[in-house]
Amino acid sequence: MVKDNCKILDCTIRDGGLVNNWDFSVDFVRDLYQGLSDAGVEYMEIGYKNSPKLLKGADSGPWRFLDENFLRDVIPHKTATKLSALVDIGRVDENDILPREDSMLDLIRVACYIKDVEKGLELVQTFHDKGYETSLNIMALSHVLDHELVEAFEEIAKSPVDIVYVVDSYGSMDAKDIEFLVEKFKKHLPNKKLGIHTHNNMQLAFANTLTGLQHGVTYLDSSVYGMGRAAGNCPTELLLGLLKNTNYELRPVLDIIERHMLQIRKTWEWGYIIPYMVAGHLNEHPRVAMALRDSEDRDKFVDFYDKLTSPEVSAAGSKAD
Amino acid sequence: MVKDNCKILDCTIRDGGLVNNWDFSVDFVRDLYQGLSDAGVEYMEIGYKNSPKLLKGADSGPWRFLDENFLRDVIPHKTATKLSALVDIGRVDENDILPREDSMLDLIRVACYIKDVEKGLELVQTFHDKGYETSLNIMALSHVLDHELVEAFEEIAKSPVDIVYVVDSYGSMDAKDIEFLVEKFKKHLPNKKLGIHTHNNMQLAFANTLTGLQHGVTYLDSSVYGMGRAAGNCPTELLLGLLKNTNYELRPVLDIIERHMLQIRKTWEWGYIIPYMVAGHLNEHPRVAMALRDSEDRDKFVDFYDKLTSPEVSAAGSKAD
Repeated sequence: MVKDNCKILDCTIRDGGLVNNWDFSVDFVRDLYQGLSDAGVEYMEIGYKNSPKLLKGADSGPWRFLDENFLRDVIPHKTATKLSALVDIGRVDENDILPREDSMLDLIRVACYIKDVEKGLELVQTFHDKGYETSLNIMALSHVLDHELVEAFEEIAKSPVDIVYVVDSYGSMDAKDIEFLVEKFKKHLPNKKLGIHTHNNMQLAFANTLTGLQHGVTYLDSSVYGMGRAAGNCPTELLLGLLKNTNYELRPVLDIIERHMLQIRKTWEWGYIIPYMVAGHLNEHPRVAMALRDSEDRDKFVDFYDKLTSPEVSAAGSKAD
Repeated sequence: MVKDNCKILDCTIRDGGLVNNWDFSVDFVRDLYQGLSDAGVEYMEIGYKNSPKLLKGADSGPWRFLDENFLRDVIPHKTATKLSALVDIGRVDENDILPREDSMLDLIRVACYIKDVEKGLELVQTFHDKGYETSLNIMALSHVLDHELVEAFEEIAKSPVDIVYVVDSYGSMDAKDIEFLVEKFKKHLPNKKLGIHTHNNMQLAFANTLTGLQHGVTYLDSSVYGMGRAAGNCPTELLLGLLKNTNYELRPVLDIIERHMLQIRKTWEWGYIIPYMVAGHLNEHPRVAMALRDSEDRDKFVDFYDKLTSPEVSAAGSKAD
């Protein structure tokens, strides 16, 4: 019998925080941790472990700058569900990171663009030496040239990183793209575990995650009700319901959606929304679409499409990362 | 270069009519026809050609019981976009169907359950003899046993039907299911063109349609903004944007969404909604979920899940079709 041999990493608080500026109550996060635990989800990414000294955002909720003492109050009793945090290159103070045995966190994930892979791997080494599980998440793979990726693989293969992620930052990939990338990662990184992080601009986040799994990815990112930046992520509830011959339970996460997510979705917007579809289709960062949704022109889809597809102006009208 | 060799059949009015009891204005339908024409969509399914004598529904809009004189008023100038209508077994009066040369319609599609394939093929023969393109859409394939399907194929192969559809009525299928069915249809019906009609209960309608295309299906059903019964269908705009090396235009359909669909969606509900996800996950007809959404318990997801998964009661508590 076919068994889906995988681990789910729910990133509702971390990626969803990009939607609501991490405005999640402690009660909600506690409830979510219990729900994910009951559902059998292996990891909960509870926020960013960036440093407030290195990044503006004093108005953000506490999940953007995780503090160990705070975390201990939030989750006094850890279950089998491990905790993870994401850090960005140049925004994390290594001195903030306790040795794992003193920390609430189990996994630290390092997100970087291709040009910063070396810096990313230095951080990975630091966190690895402190005892953490580690991952490297190279963002915006759809904008990376093949030779850059192959060069990066050489460095990654030598590092102690446990998991390397295929990240579809712009929600622009289809099954063939995922298959191509996963096979390439497998070929160059035969000793690493692989993960996948998708966005739902073209309603392909869940399907692409399944494609990744079929080709050997074992760490699946998702968020409850798909809550994540712009079009959001692969919905956790779909993985819980659809993966074959696992011990996951759908019911506890339906309960979270019923009691919390419907209300959050009334206040904050994410999901399949036409400007995000257009951005995904055009393989663009969603920031211009997000700005549109924040303006009075939020539903002017044709104007937006014309702006992004006109050859006379820069597609985004914004600076590169 | 890979070229997606397919035809899109937009069924917004027909399947979307199941959402709003066919309450579409003539102006909207005209606008949609123009938009789909400008986008290069090959077929527009403009409604059902059932008979009001054989079916209750006097309060439904005119798109449920299409009349040729009415259609001529609605669309005085046909474009390259052909018109299609769906009929149900036992609900169509053959005498209502003009010879094709006198009709606005080009394609008549016959929908039936597996037990009625013979009756369906009789209708197909009648419409074929009147000069129409024809299709047979066997509904609820996820509830059909293999030997029933193989027996049906023998009859279908002998009939003049042009297109045979793989129909995921309950939105319960994933890529492997679609691949399995399409390969089976191809093996048994090598001389027929194949179509696919999906539902979006598990956010797989678009992905499953692409999987069908990849395996040789050429007729792709979709609806604008996904408007269709319960979780809705594969969104037309995603096909227009994502199919490779075609002459489709996305812009005219973005315009339809901006000017019409957002407003319609405010009044009428369809799409990825948890009870429909649960029904798809459990391979159930969405009718119980639709009834829930019409009740004051519409957001009681856990109760609904418990009811549908309890072994002590019949899953649906409703009669079979």
